Amino acid sequence: MSIKPSVALISVLKTFATCDIGDALVKLKVPFGGFLDGITMFSPERQAGPTKIFGEAITVKMVDASDKTSPSLPKHFCDYNESGKIMFISQPKGMYSACWGGLMTTRAKYLGAPGVIVDGRFRDVLEQREMGFPVFARQISILGSNGYTRASEVNIPLQFKDNLWVNPGDFVMGDADGVVVIPADKVEQVVDLCTERKKIDDLTFEALHKGEPIGDAIKRLRKA
Amino acid sequence: MSIKPSVALISVLKTFATCDIGDALVKLKVPFGGFLDGITMFSPERQAGPTKIFGEAITVKMVDASDKTSPSLPKHFCDYNESGKIMFISQPKGMYSACWGGLMTTRAKYLGAPGVIVDGRFRDVLEQREMGFPVFARQISILGSNGYTRASEVNIPLQFKDNLWVNPGDFVMGDADGVVVIPADKVEQVVDLCTERKKIDDLTFEALHKGEPIGDAIKRLRKA
Amino acid sequence: MSIKPSVALISVLKTFATCDIGDALVKLKVPFGGFLDGITMFSPERQAGPTKIFGEAITVKMVDASDKTSPSLPKHFCDYNESGKIMFISQPKGMYSACWGGLMTTRAKYLGAPGVIVDGRFRDVLEQREMGFPVFARQISILGSNGYTRASEVNIPLQFKDNLWVNPGDFVMGDADGVVVIPADKVEQVVDLCTERKKIDDLTFEALHKGEPIGDAIKRLRKA
Repeated sequence: MSIKPSVALISVLKTFATCDIGDALVKLKVPFGGFLDGITMFSPERQAGPTKIFGEAITVKMVDASDKTSPSLPKHFCDYNESGKIMFISQPKGMYSACWGGLMTTRAKYLGAPGVIVDGRFRDVLEQREMGFPVFARQISILGSNGYTRASEVNIPLQFKDNLWVNPGDFVMGDADGVVVIPADKVEQVVDLCTERKKIDDLTFEALHKGEPIGDAIKRLRKA
Repeated sequence: MSIKPSVALISVLKTFATCDIGDALVKLKVPFGGFLDGITMFSPERQAGPTKIFGEAITVKMVDASDKTSPSLPKHFCDYNESGKIMFISQPKGMYSACWGGLMTTRAKYLGAPGVIVDGRFRDVLEQREMGFPVFARQISILGSNGYTRASEVNIPLQFKDNLWVNPGDFVMGDADGVVVIPADKVEQVVDLCTERKKIDDLTFEALHKGEPIGDAIKRLRKA
Repeated sequence: MSIKPSVALISVLKTFATCDIGDALVKLKVPFGGFLDGITMFSPERQAGPTKIFGEAITVKMVDASDKTSPSLPKHFCDYNESGKIMFISQPKGMYSACWGGLMTTRAKYLGAPGVIVDGRFRDVLEQREMGFPVFARQISILGSNGYTRASEVNIPLQFKDNLWVNPGDFVMGDADGVVVIPADKVEQVVDLCTERKKIDDLTFEALHKGEPIGDAIKRLRKA
């Protein structure tokens, strides 16, 4: 049962980078440091630029279009977007069609979504970039979902890999380095670890610019 | 036996995007919606920008350099380029050398080719971009074909994957989203489907900008 | 036992591109033409721009953090960087953490390294680009090495793939097309082959611009 972190805490968490947070989550024994390996930034730029998205995750499970037994949703999955929250969409493995495109971005932007994270494919890359909408995904496709996948459930826990899950209410962050998922009950510890490490890293950079060997600087500053 | 589509029809087909055409081909039961998955734009930009190439395919089959039994060509394969047509080159799977480079682009441009599609690798990426020549491929290499592959046949049907083939006389299109092959005898139906869908998509975008839920807009407009 | 090539020879070698050198190494029967396939430019740009790094290799072997039997280094591996030389770092296969980041780049730049080549992953891609430091790698990660890998040995021969090795004292070059390793004892022959071929390629480009078929031009000029 996770306790919802405070607004203040979340606003501090937001200032760090995926790399800072990943390291903290490794220390906290979160599987794979919460790293959603394989999902990278495609819009507004390709693994480049200062764009960072951060928010609570809305999870969406896609299933094969031929799957008639899995649950269905009462409305279009994209209409579940909420202001400030980020959809994490899980597509069946190996599917070569897209489950996100330009129309959905138009709707998601209208609803105030800061971006989307697709464990699968998207399309309309130029439209995404023209709209300046951050899209993180595995790859691009030219094919829509029609005949390939359908949305089945929203806001259920989704397995990313082995014991790494994305749960509704978890926080997700994406930047040029990659994507990380932060369990809600780890936010406080992550903020503490990142804050402490940020200070050490700043001092380390300073020392390196002065010519101190990196081994010495790390030994001196990280052990302090 | 495919009937050659009219010039007028082709000029309309050309105005659509790979995503529009892929969806139409899925509806027409063309395998994989004609999507040449894995081949992406490397020049003039990497999966970016407004570049779109379109034309009739000239197919080229590469074989292992050690293969002495497959047919040979009477002239260099690159000299088979024709104005307005696009070479689709099939390299043996897993080959790490390039079968297209800067010299070939110079020749292809001279002959009026709008670009090249390589089911394999190319090289001289900077030269390609300086010449503004669109290159779609699986990956880059630093090695030429010498000792690795040789051209064996032109304008024969080439298997891309399973039951998806690229035939001489098919049309190919490549843009930032990917590459699609359009069988010549499907052009008319593709144009009809794309034209119809374009109208619906324009209305859908309009509705979404006004705040209509995407589920409602799709239901209202696609069923109309 | 390799003989160290002269400074003059090295300064000529440096003027060629990875593609020129790869072709020469194929002719000289160097495995895979010295091509370090899979390692591509991520900084200062992604497989783009005029950046080329060249220098003698300093090899670094990473092992699993859990490996307690492999040797250890008396100092931080990054402090082994030397002016004008390029670290080639070999990370255990399939590892999803980074073994190079912003702090290391700061140190490497201070020591005069022209760039780094990682047979594995790096992170802090924006910092790398802001510092204008050339980084060639397989992929990006958000996770540091802590708990995943540790440096074990420097300046030992490292197996890249099959019979392709990177040895301390070999030369390495990276540009937008890829990365090549040049055995020290092959430098003279490589320079000869590249010089000869460069002349032929220049004449070939000239002929192609005048409209000569590529087959004819190659036959005429390469046999000359």
